[in-house]
Amino acid sequence: MSKLQNLKMSELQNAMESLVAVFHNYSSKEGDKYKLNKSELKTLLQEELGDFMAVSNDPRRVECILEDLDENGDGEVDFQEFVVLVAALTVACNDFFEDFL
Amino acid sequence: MSKLQNLKMSELQNAMESLVAVFHNYSSKEGDKYKLNKSELKTLLQEELGDFMAVSNDPRRVECILEDLDENGDGEVDFQEFVVLVAALTVACNDFFEDFL
Repeated sequence: MSKLQNLKMSELQNAMESLVAVFHNYSSKEGDKYKLNKSELKTLLQEELGDFMAVSNDPRRVECILEDLDENGDGEVDFQEFVVLVAALTVACNDFFEDFL
Repeated sequence: MSKLQNLKMSELQNAMESLVAVFHNYSSKEGDKYKLNKSELKTLLQEELGDFMAVSNDPRRVECILEDLDENGDGEVDFQEFVVLVAALTVACNDFFEDFL
């Protein structure tokens, strides 16, 4: 195997890198660059998960999601809290996928 | 926005789809196609996470990881149990990433 092939990331590693990149793409917009505030969380949910979670019409919905995710109660969502949401949604997607196999 | 653009998945959705696809790529090889047995888990760890977890040299290592992940004690790893591993590794990657920002 060539050195170039050794450097190639696996599909799973690419997916993990994407989770980190997507989070920081939104968390770095304002305030603490390692955490999503309410406005950043809303933008992420709309732009990345618009098909899963309709957050546009109900202003309380983002607040409820933030409160659910915010384990340490600091009013923002850090990466560890964000991964819990992604894990739950991915398990739901997998259940849906397995039902159709 | 055109219909084609509407159908385009976000980076986060692509990552979630990859997690499901990678899991089933290995879980479907033998036995219960929705679960990873020890041999399938070992292949997944070696091929997808070789840089993170060296499992080749110690035969007990895969058994320990399987026991750690196997929440329901059925001797195999289902998707929900697999996502816990991915979440933990991704949080570790994120910590590493943030340290270098």
